[in-house]
Amino acid sequence: MWSPVPWRDVSITDGFWAEMQRRNRERTLPAEYRQCRDTGRLDALRLRWQPGQQPRPHFFWDSDVAKWVEAASYSLATHPDAELEAHVEEVVGLLVAAQQPDGYLNSYFTVVEPEARFTDTRDAHELYCAGHLLEAAVAHFQATGRRSLLDALCRYADLIGTVFGRGPGQKPGYPGHEEIELALVRLWRTTGERRHLDLARYFIDERGRQPLWWEVEEQARGGTPGHFGGLTKTMRDLPRTNQSHAPVREQYEAVGHSVRAMYLYCGMADVAQATGDGPLWAACERLWDDVTERHMYVTGGIGSTASYEGFTADYDLPNASAYAETCAAVGLAFFAHRMLQRDCDGRYADVLERVLFNGVLSGVSADGETFFYVNPLASDGTRHRQDWFSCACCPPNVARLLASLGGYVWSVRGEEEAALHLPVTGSARVRLGGRDVTLEQRTDQPWGGAVAVRVRLGAPARFALRLRVPGWCDGARLRCNGEPVAAPTERGYLRLDREWRDGDEVALELAMPVQRVYAHPEVQDDQGRVALQRGPLVYCFEQVDQPDAPLARALLLPESAAPAWAAFDPALLGGVVAVTVAGAVEEAETTAGTGHGSPLYRRARPARRPVVLRAVPYFAWDNRAPGAMRVWLREA
Amino acid sequence: MWSPVPWRDVSITDGFWAEMQRRNRERTLPAEYRQCRDTGRLDALRLRWQPGQQPRPHFFWDSDVAKWVEAASYSLATHPDAELEAHVEEVVGLLVAAQQPDGYLNSYFTVVEPEARFTDTRDAHELYCAGHLLEAAVAHFQATGRRSLLDALCRYADLIGTVFGRGPGQKPGYPGHEEIELALVRLWRTTGERRHLDLARYFIDERGRQPLWWEVEEQARGGTPGHFGGLTKTMRDLPRTNQSHAPVREQYEAVGHSVRAMYLYCGMADVAQATGDGPLWAACERLWDDVTERHMYVTGGIGSTASYEGFTADYDLPNASAYAETCAAVGLAFFAHRMLQRDCDGRYADVLERVLFNGVLSGVSADGETFFYVNPLASDGTRHRQDWFSCACCPPNVARLLASLGGYVWSVRGEEEAALHLPVTGSARVRLGGRDVTLEQRTDQPWGGAVAVRVRLGAPARFALRLRVPGWCDGARLRCNGEPVAAPTERGYLRLDREWRDGDEVALELAMPVQRVYAHPEVQDDQGRVALQRGPLVYCFEQVDQPDAPLARALLLPESAAPAWAAFDPALLGGVVAVTVAGAVEEAETTAGTGHGSPLYRRARPARRPVVLRAVPYFAWDNRAPGAMRVWLREA
Repeated sequence: MWSPVPWRDVSITDGFWAEMQRRNRERTLPAEYRQCRDTGRLDALRLRWQPGQQPRPHFFWDSDVAKWVEAASYSLATHPDAELEAHVEEVVGLLVAAQQPDGYLNSYFTVVEPEARFTDTRDAHELYCAGHLLEAAVAHFQATGRRSLLDALCRYADLIGTVFGRGPGQKPGYPGHEEIELALVRLWRTTGERRHLDLARYFIDERGRQPLWWEVEEQARGGTPGHFGGLTKTMRDLPRTNQSHAPVREQYEAVGHSVRAMYLYCGMADVAQATGDGPLWAACERLWDDVTERHMYVTGGIGSTASYEGFTADYDLPNASAYAETCAAVGLAFFAHRMLQRDCDGRYADVLERVLFNGVLSGVSADGETFFYVNPLASDGTRHRQDWFSCACCPPNVARLLASLGGYVWSVRGEEEAALHLPVTGSARVRLGGRDVTLEQRTDQPWGGAVAVRVRLGAPARFALRLRVPGWCDGARLRCNGEPVAAPTERGYLRLDREWRDGDEVALELAMPVQRVYAHPEVQDDQGRVALQRGPLVYCFEQVDQPDAPLARALLLPESAAPAWAAFDPALLGGVVAVTVAGAVEEAETTAGTGHGSPLYRRARPARRPVVLRAVPYFAWDNRAPGAMRVWLREA
Repeated sequence: MWSPVPWRDVSITDGFWAEMQRRNRERTLPAEYRQCRDTGRLDALRLRWQPGQQPRPHFFWDSDVAKWVEAASYSLATHPDAELEAHVEEVVGLLVAAQQPDGYLNSYFTVVEPEARFTDTRDAHELYCAGHLLEAAVAHFQATGRRSLLDALCRYADLIGTVFGRGPGQKPGYPGHEEIELALVRLWRTTGERRHLDLARYFIDERGRQPLWWEVEEQARGGTPGHFGGLTKTMRDLPRTNQSHAPVREQYEAVGHSVRAMYLYCGMADVAQATGDGPLWAACERLWDDVTERHMYVTGGIGSTASYEGFTADYDLPNASAYAETCAAVGLAFFAHRMLQRDCDGRYADVLERVLFNGVLSGVSADGETFFYVNPLASDGTRHRQDWFSCACCPPNVARLLASLGGYVWSVRGEEEAALHLPVTGSARVRLGGRDVTLEQRTDQPWGGAVAVRVRLGAPARFALRLRVPGWCDGARLRCNGEPVAAPTERGYLRLDREWRDGDEVALELAMPVQRVYAHPEVQDDQGRVALQRGPLVYCFEQVDQPDAPLARALLLPESAAPAWAAFDPALLGGVVAVTVAGAVEEAETTAGTGHGSPLYRRARPARRPVVLRAVPYFAWDNRAPGAMRVWLREA
């Protein structure tokens, strides 16, 4: 079993991810604070709302604030900032002050529907909000050493543990929107209090048992519908929608709301790791395979349909109508990171990298202040990022992932090995071979293929370093102190096991040609189509880059006939590698008689005009003139 | 100006269409009678319904019965049948007896909501039902010479003319679902009473004027919502949905509910022809072009979306989710037939033929007893015809079109010319060159390309015959009395102007190779795809014909590499020409490493395995083992 090197022990000092963290810190976190303040989310915590007053708080709101506190806390620890810290402490103070004498902490159910506390676990997101508050509390404590929020949330967790469970007088319930499970495991890891882990395991184990909790709960309410409506009428498929259709160890397919699914699977993996629960691990692996082999966009986006924000049939991955919620991408990164710790298998890291660089990053604009909730892979030009959402889960979710990205860079196995998953420029402090070791990294990823790690330690020590060779890379050259070396590959990682001396450097050069990517042929919307990828970045075509080619009728020429050029353009989108490729446009006009009573149908294939097409990284789309966008273009 | 040779003067005695009429007569009409009876539609006409009783009549129901009477009347006239006649007279008796003393005739608003008569012309389909009753009455009179239903409907039309209009005390309203306009013109043509035409013109002219009638009407109801809900909330785009967004002469795009649109455009063309209204003709032509050049499936189906059963954006013609309601196809045939009479332009006949042979005929099963309401161009195997529908507009709509098909075969221009639009085997009685002429036809269409017309007349006479060369035909050979002749082509018709003697025969041999059809490249769902057509028939691929090729992954090889064979198979689907063509299947498995952390995405194009694919006429799909179906296959 591996464990991540914690985010607080990893610095990211330069390059792509440092720039993303800087934008997150300087633009996104302040913008999100303003939104939370201006929309009433902070005021709601003052518990002064009166019936009839606008805005009426929403039962989601605490979770938005909590995720912002979590994100800001990570950032403060690595990059102190007095103004941000003042805002964090203001919000933490509001949260602590909003706690009720019995430990309860939820602004909505304290003032808007106090009589309804813990009566609608299916829809009312109380346990979901509690989970995000728990994560915020752990992060705030780890970042600042201050215990006020952590202590408050420990009391709230204890109250929840009193209310829910299989004991006499307890509700045998569990959350309709998962999240608290993984949060309770984090709390247990921080406090060491076994009851937090036990409560997480209770929620995991209880889920999907018969009789269905939602029916029991609705009866207990005297038949009053949940906050999203009556169970029988409006949400016939609800048990699948919130993954309560079967006990989790008997779940074989990824179904329902994709964010809920990701948070559940993370909680399952956490409990499995903490308790050594083999059947639970096996369920995680089955669900992972189903998500990534049948339900994942090439961007790492998941959840194709807007109707319940979730998974549909196998290989149903439409591009224009893709939902691919930003939160679901963030959730997949969380899930991948947990699966990766089991045996350091590069296929988990490949998906982690795919979703981070594409489906997660697309959620934020180049200026850091507008956000996609939905991430389509094709657009007619009408899809744009927004300042905020009434349901604003996504913006702070990306912020907390970016701010804690250091935690995704390395893992260690005891003191014996360290594995590099995500190249960054910066350094990590680890304990290896009985020594305190600093691993200094340099990389020009994702634009170039150079990855170097210099080992710093007081005296020589023996341990292994694993350097990941990404799945997209066909040619990796490894050097140690400048000399080519050979190293065995284990599950996608080159493994160098040797005695290391201070200053030793291993360098990896990853070939990064522009690659054509083809989808599994059952993906109807991608048949006969191709996407471009270079390194970890999926590319897309935006209309603004094709003055002569209407994207709606553009296609790529076959690889053999059409070389692709990749070149860094410092003036483009803040500096990105653009890809240029030879393509064609089908002409709408036809000179041949159509012969079918309408120019809609013709006897000849549309004529083609050669064009040069330019692609930019998908994550950077919709930052210039509005227009059509395509990830997958026909190939002919 | 041309006029159709009436259905009662044209017999269809053998071949494809005779078989379709036989099936319609022997299977479909009796099945529809049983459905009308068993679902309570006939009982509703007895006006004995009491509150609380099930089934509760629906305000559509009279129209279903009316269309059945209309269809059965046509059939009785050409093919007497005592049992069918007894049923027709029973239903006609019920209708006549259901008329109220003041002339009102609507079973629903007589017994279920008597207080709501003519208060919701937007949703309640009263004028729509009246229109279908009018058509039934005209057909019944023409078929049987009996006046009872016609007289009843004349009284009802007069009542409607009293209620609606611009005079004092009248409602300045018009129907939310068009139909009565074209029906009133038919009534005028039958009775010669000018007021029927005037009322039709009133409805046409009034439509789309400001203030919007629906708002005036809703105010008059004191704000009570219409039968489909409140105007402002649920149907924001209602004026476009029912084509009341602008006066009809200022309409430039086909919008909204497609059946309503077709019936409106037919009414507009009828009024334009009857009154010589140039701007109204111009509007019809613009709307025709918009429908057929930007909104028509290759099957002639129209109206892509289920959400309001109507037209969407230009070139938005998705295949699997195609709505393409059978009634809309029938309506397009009606509209095409009217436009064709203006100047005998073959492009209207081409669309008429396309929709008849494909989008209309697909509405009925091979056994004549189950029906499609929605006609997709691709299916995953879950779309099947049904016995009946709660909204059962489509089955009797096809029945009345098939039973009156003789009316679509010929048109005449005075006594100077006759034009053959639709080859059938049978004969037509016409007056040409001052003589009573019988035009005897033989054809093996749609399976073969032979069309022959023998002229029968007492003494020689000079007139012109026009024989249509369909748009799909590249090579037509014309003979007169066995000798090749040349004839000029006018708008798609070969014109032979000569003195005709008894027994003269003109014969046309139409080349009928299998053709590949390509869509306008703006049709996203058809890009890179091809459909097969032979003669007027669009073909489709059904899974049942491809034991080795999963259709979801099949494609056609390019034309040059893949000849197609057409062969009549008497054992297949009652005898059809099947088309066999060389294609390929993309393999789901990949031997090359995928390199992307998931077998969903690969670096190599899917491998292809050659297969032989068989296609059958689209109209005949879903008559064998359930399975996937595709009209458009990728070409590569």
